[in-house]
Amino acid sequence: MHKDLLAPGAFLSPLVIEDAVRRALEEDLGRAGDITSAATIPEGTKARAKLVAREPGVIAGLACAVEAFRLLDPEISFRAKIRDGAKVAARATAAEVEGPAAAILSAERVALNFVGHLSGIATLTAAYVAKVAHTNAKISCTRKTIPGLRALEKYAVRCGGGSNHRFGLDDAVLIKDNHIAVAGGIKSALERARAAVGHLVKIEIEVTSLEELAEVLAAGGADAVLLDNMDAKTMKRAVEKVAGKLITEASGGVSLDTVAKIAETGVDVISVGRITHSAPALDLALDVET
Amino acid sequence: MHKDLLAPGAFLSPLVIEDAVRRALEEDLGRAGDITSAATIPEGTKARAKLVAREPGVIAGLACAVEAFRLLDPEISFRAKIRDGAKVAARATAAEVEGPAAAILSAERVALNFVGHLSGIATLTAAYVAKVAHTNAKISCTRKTIPGLRALEKYAVRCGGGSNHRFGLDDAVLIKDNHIAVAGGIKSALERARAAVGHLVKIEIEVTSLEELAEVLAAGGADAVLLDNMDAKTMKRAVEKVAGKLITEASGGVSLDTVAKIAETGVDVISVGRITHSAPALDLALDVET
Amino acid sequence: MHKDLLAPGAFLSPLVIEDAVRRALEEDLGRAGDITSAATIPEGTKARAKLVAREPGVIAGLACAVEAFRLLDPEISFRAKIRDGAKVAARATAAEVEGPAAAILSAERVALNFVGHLSGIATLTAAYVAKVAHTNAKISCTRKTIPGLRALEKYAVRCGGGSNHRFGLDDAVLIKDNHIAVAGGIKSALERARAAVGHLVKIEIEVTSLEELAEVLAAGGADAVLLDNMDAKTMKRAVEKVAGKLITEASGGVSLDTVAKIAETGVDVISVGRITHSAPALDLALDVET
Amino acid sequence: MHKDLLAPGAFLSPLVIEDAVRRALEEDLGRAGDITSAATIPEGTKARAKLVAREPGVIAGLACAVEAFRLLDPEISFRAKIRDGAKVAARATAAEVEGPAAAILSAERVALNFVGHLSGIATLTAAYVAKVAHTNAKISCTRKTIPGLRALEKYAVRCGGGSNHRFGLDDAVLIKDNHIAVAGGIKSALERARAAVGHLVKIEIEVTSLEELAEVLAAGGADAVLLDNMDAKTMKRAVEKVAGKLITEASGGVSLDTVAKIAETGVDVISVGRITHSAPALDLALDVET
Amino acid sequence: MHKDLLAPGAFLSPLVIEDAVRRALEEDLGRAGDITSAATIPEGTKARAKLVAREPGVIAGLACAVEAFRLLDPEISFRAKIRDGAKVAARATAAEVEGPAAAILSAERVALNFVGHLSGIATLTAAYVAKVAHTNAKISCTRKTIPGLRALEKYAVRCGGGSNHRFGLDDAVLIKDNHIAVAGGIKSALERARAAVGHLVKIEIEVTSLEELAEVLAAGGADAVLLDNMDAKTMKRAVEKVAGKLITEASGGVSLDTVAKIAETGVDVISVGRITHSAPALDLALDVET
Amino acid sequence: MHKDLLAPGAFLSPLVIEDAVRRALEEDLGRAGDITSAATIPEGTKARAKLVAREPGVIAGLACAVEAFRLLDPEISFRAKIRDGAKVAARATAAEVEGPAAAILSAERVALNFVGHLSGIATLTAAYVAKVAHTNAKISCTRKTIPGLRALEKYAVRCGGGSNHRFGLDDAVLIKDNHIAVAGGIKSALERARAAVGHLVKIEIEVTSLEELAEVLAAGGADAVLLDNMDAKTMKRAVEKVAGKLITEASGGVSLDTVAKIAETGVDVISVGRITHSAPALDLALDVET
Repeated sequence: MHKDLLAPGAFLSPLVIEDAVRRALEEDLGRAGDITSAATIPEGTKARAKLVAREPGVIAGLACAVEAFRLLDPEISFRAKIRDGAKVAARATAAEVEGPAAAILSAERVALNFVGHLSGIATLTAAYVAKVAHTNAKISCTRKTIPGLRALEKYAVRCGGGSNHRFGLDDAVLIKDNHIAVAGGIKSALERARAAVGHLVKIEIEVTSLEELAEVLAAGGADAVLLDNMDAKTMKRAVEKVAGKLITEASGGVSLDTVAKIAETGVDVISVGRITHSAPALDLALDVET
Repeated sequence: MHKDLLAPGAFLSPLVIEDAVRRALEEDLGRAGDITSAATIPEGTKARAKLVAREPGVIAGLACAVEAFRLLDPEISFRAKIRDGAKVAARATAAEVEGPAAAILSAERVALNFVGHLSGIATLTAAYVAKVAHTNAKISCTRKTIPGLRALEKYAVRCGGGSNHRFGLDDAVLIKDNHIAVAGGIKSALERARAAVGHLVKIEIEVTSLEELAEVLAAGGADAVLLDNMDAKTMKRAVEKVAGKLITEASGGVSLDTVAKIAETGVDVISVGRITHSAPALDLALDVET
Repeated sequence: MHKDLLAPGAFLSPLVIEDAVRRALEEDLGRAGDITSAATIPEGTKARAKLVAREPGVIAGLACAVEAFRLLDPEISFRAKIRDGAKVAARATAAEVEGPAAAILSAERVALNFVGHLSGIATLTAAYVAKVAHTNAKISCTRKTIPGLRALEKYAVRCGGGSNHRFGLDDAVLIKDNHIAVAGGIKSALERARAAVGHLVKIEIEVTSLEELAEVLAAGGADAVLLDNMDAKTMKRAVEKVAGKLITEASGGVSLDTVAKIAETGVDVISVGRITHSAPALDLALDVET
Repeated sequence: MHKDLLAPGAFLSPLVIEDAVRRALEEDLGRAGDITSAATIPEGTKARAKLVAREPGVIAGLACAVEAFRLLDPEISFRAKIRDGAKVAARATAAEVEGPAAAILSAERVALNFVGHLSGIATLTAAYVAKVAHTNAKISCTRKTIPGLRALEKYAVRCGGGSNHRFGLDDAVLIKDNHIAVAGGIKSALERARAAVGHLVKIEIEVTSLEELAEVLAAGGADAVLLDNMDAKTMKRAVEKVAGKLITEASGGVSLDTVAKIAETGVDVISVGRITHSAPALDLALDVET
Repeated sequence: MHKDLLAPGAFLSPLVIEDAVRRALEEDLGRAGDITSAATIPEGTKARAKLVAREPGVIAGLACAVEAFRLLDPEISFRAKIRDGAKVAARATAAEVEGPAAAILSAERVALNFVGHLSGIATLTAAYVAKVAHTNAKISCTRKTIPGLRALEKYAVRCGGGSNHRFGLDDAVLIKDNHIAVAGGIKSALERARAAVGHLVKIEIEVTSLEELAEVLAAGGADAVLLDNMDAKTMKRAVEKVAGKLITEASGGVSLDTVAKIAETGVDVISVGRITHSAPALDLALDVET
Repeated sequence: MHKDLLAPGAFLSPLVIEDAVRRALEEDLGRAGDITSAATIPEGTKARAKLVAREPGVIAGLACAVEAFRLLDPEISFRAKIRDGAKVAARATAAEVEGPAAAILSAERVALNFVGHLSGIATLTAAYVAKVAHTNAKISCTRKTIPGLRALEKYAVRCGGGSNHRFGLDDAVLIKDNHIAVAGGIKSALERARAAVGHLVKIEIEVTSLEELAEVLAAGGADAVLLDNMDAKTMKRAVEKVAGKLITEASGGVSLDTVAKIAETGVDVISVGRITHSAPALDLALDVET
């Protein structure tokens, strides 16, 4: 049901969508439900509504909106005019909704909260992506996400043209300074990691200097290297030293102002926490005709 | 356990905290858990860490942080230096953590994601509150929250000095333009609402003009009136007309630039969606010594 | 799907219904399911059944019944003859059910347990409501509900013509004697409460004497006053003193014998614990033809 | 922790208790929690309270009460003065509670709702049991329970001296008239059932006449027979005919007025729906000193 | 929906199936979903597939397979060629599936994991059943099941022609040596048990010698006796002593090599742990044409 | 609490353990709980017990056992004599348990079901690992696991010395024949996959011939290649062609008889479905002294 709404090529489990939206509806309807609509809307009243962008951006989360309406009343029809990943102008209609007025108004806020939040992430991601379009660098999210929404937020990043970093602590190894310290150094940490994980798990390791990078290259066993908080010049040297043998990722101090310069160092990936933890919501509204 | 961390006078159900944090940990640990720490950290390694603000702000969510550490390992100790609602300077230590290194590193990101997000909301709320300190207006949140975190976000608003609007569709009546249209006008809508709800439920109604306000005042039955998108002059007139008989709320077009002027109209409450849906995270870090 | 079964104007979240009924079915079917029906009913056997009242009363909970049948087999059809809130005579048919015999018999008890319990509440509420019909007093439920069914029981109270008090500890303030004692008196308690809660939260305060009532009136800040266990004469005086400035609620010692006299004091609301915690089930049966 | 509170010899899974109480607390605390206590109770205030019966009865559910207090604050101490199954006089103290005042008041209603409801069931059961004390008949509950609380209600029946019928559709076979009709008669139904179930599952079959009873006895395969709605004379004849070869159960038309006469027919078990679906709550209160 | 797939006469709650399959899909899809199919399968691609046995066996679990496909995409059609309990030859087609290619491939492994595991149990059970076909002994499962799948595994045992022992600790009494020891002997244990449980609960008691058996027979109160780890000769004597007054169950040391000999002692039931805890999966595959 | 029981270096989320064990206890205790122990064990009876292996093997799952005892009664002490991953001889004691007798007996079966199942997997894995000890090949599990237990089963594989393949569809790409077919060939499939996934996701692709392998090597973009059902000679040629540029994995037709020969081809990884889906339980018992 949701497939035609997702960004092309993207997958998002219908079970994840249903679970997140059900929780949000339970949170909003509480124990007594929508007492305003129950009290004021005469039985049998129908409504039409348009989901409209009030500012330009990139849409993400239409499948959550349709799920909100469906869970409250399967009779509500939802016709998307675009699909996730599309750019919209201000005043553009993203979807049309039609059905029982009370259920539409009851689901409205939850639907908007999902689409607004996820489109905000997609839109901010797209802004970063645009800044590095002249390079080969990918913009990647991090694990700095709003608790409970990680799968949806990472999907929104893809809608905005970004790429995904780890989804959690379990799907890749990322060795940071603290791990290196207690493991007895870079070489030892990499050996321990390689011995511990399966053959389909990648290993990335953080370095803060060219000396540490040299150690990593000498040790072997890493698939990627995280160049943490390096200035552009050092980073460029680091990329040259790596010479394509590892994937290079830049992190730290990334903003819309600095990202192009970082990308021009030649790094493969630039990870940006704020595209998930600090993206303002895209302003959308449901214009209802009753 | 969490009480000493909450903002003074604030209540937050321990069941809500545990449920939210457990979900976030499950989301981050996934199926295999923290494979990096398991691989690289020698058994028995202990660590100390400081939860440090990297920029000034208002703290909220320490109870979520302690819950994240506790759920992963009850042996971790957590000593808060401040409590929620406190202002912190950059580099201030909010709490100290001590215990098994692997568990501390495994819980770190979840703990930070909660405190960063909620402190971001508290900090932005406090900025709005400061702008209207010379008036009697309260800054209030809305139902425009990130799905799944409403109770925590509304608590963060209180940490920032703000006030809470409805928690959901069920705890107060808010009659908007669509409800009025299908109910047959303001008078009819108010009568239907008053007849439907219990004696401890308040009723608020949205108006967009002084004419509508006059209808509301004539009809009776409302406890509060929402002055939607009025210019300052009209709003001032509206407040004068209400003359304390109803609570007045302003909404629409509220920003840090405009909020003082709105407050100066004499409204009782100014509701601001962006303090919950668009607050950037406060930058915090866990500085770990192993 | 459930809307046409609910009492007119009433809202009950479909998510609440589904969750409660699913739990009840899981409780009744256990691990092995309905072993009697599986063993004795030949495959393909169809049945018709009538949901019949065995005594007069007010019906509530038909949406739970249809959900029980639907969850076990979507092929079962359910045709309601009346809707919630209707009075039925003994032997009246509330609904007709038709479909696979085994599934109908497997869902029968859960369906009846919901409708019997909720109709029992509606019926007892209606008896109280009838006793005060000559006054303006509303009959209200309390938080003394059967654990796990509050939203459904409060809905049943409305089906019986009653009104709802708080749904929980979070949707209104009710200051009782213990709160007053530790807060340092009535004035202080009211001030603390008013400062703490949002503009859409009402505040009610309990008094047991006219002196306390005078303090409440003098302090301001309350929306309603709970006259606890007052004799009729004192209560009448209290209502006169309030003179419409606050909502008045009577509680304590309310029974079918005493309720009319209490109502005649002029109170606005009479709250009755026993309509939820002690209502006998309405006797209903499913008469099955196979 | 709960063991010393349960009726002697009774078992009730701690997982069942925790799940039921957690749900009830979530239902009562809602999203915002106990706003009254948060607002009015100064931090650090302690309280003592007594759980007192306001009328005589049989206590059941103390383990639910302690769980309610524990889940809100593990610092609350709970000292039972009696245990489940004990008879209490009016004004007797069942337990003493001590700890943080706000948490005690927040948990109070949930604790009382459990103990009041379950003690009501135990008390009514004990009344039936007393009526048949001069016979060998056991008073048994049915599956007519309040949805979601079956395990707890069946436990309360045992606290009142009663016995338990099936816990669900899956733990014994009970062949009723409809099953017999579609299975092709009593003999066929019993054969089908015996072939289908394991060796530790009992089979009971409903009869409404001595002729049907004769069929059951001739067919073999039943462990118990349900004598449905028989007059006392016929029931006596039925018991004589069974002559101890099967367990005999009486059902239908059982009340406190009729139960002794039914028991005197010599039946082994008398099942009574109303001890679970229609038991009024026992009146209990928490007397708090702050 | 699932009824036509279940073994004739068998019941399995649709709620149990849905819950188990939903969990398994969540486990397999994780946070990001099926990234391979999302990346490689062009939108709109359809597929057909056959669920094929790669070795002979007895099928069980088709309802789980259809549920896996349905939960991922309701547009997938599933046509069973056989139903649970049927014997299949190697290369036989059990079902045909048709619909969106990506969803079919995403659900494939979960569907196969259920059918493979449950069919493995049914197949091994059938092998034991075949070995005792010349006797009246039933092959029964135990509580030695894979955690979380008991209801499904017990159903699979029935698909293989076996019978079910207790589903849990709560649906029958089984008194073992430790219980006897602390209860003060066989007679006391039986008396305590009979007094404690309802009239539809059977009691079985374990004995290891003819002396203990004599005690059981003398004491009365048991419905079944478990002859634990007896040699065939002793067991035969035991069966003779019981002389049909109790159900006899053999346990301990049962294998495909020994089961016939045990059955020939005349016992009614032989319980075999390994049909659930150690059954190898039946080899099945989904042959997909895209 | 569980850390000292896990295999050295292994991590298993305490949340995963608690969730799995809680479900299993709920499944076994049902609604009424352990009625046998409640009836027969005098209050206050204590017991000691030893968890003993009845056959040699590799232990896994002790943390699940301790969790089962803890959830039923926190007073039960559990002292492990060994930790997961250890080899035990027949009759070796793995752990000692001491505490309330009823709770120990109630938790016994769930504890044993976990340890028996997981140790069975660890033991069978270790047998495969031993067969290839003279080579560099790793034994790896697959996604062919028992539904609901994947994280625990993959942990058990590691306890047996094996390595883990993907945990689900979301943590690595595995392109199979069907994906290749619809994606338009090997090159296209690899390109699509590389473009779609983040930089920390590995890509493996299945080939069945040397021609296909050549295509994969020419296309680039893969991290690993799955050599499916190749005879040993072809596989050896394949490994030579790959020449260390990709990780090589063998699958298909792997048994204890064939695995050494396959390993001798030089492949890096051999994946074996039957170590998870068909491992017989290790025979363990709880020897209780009361």
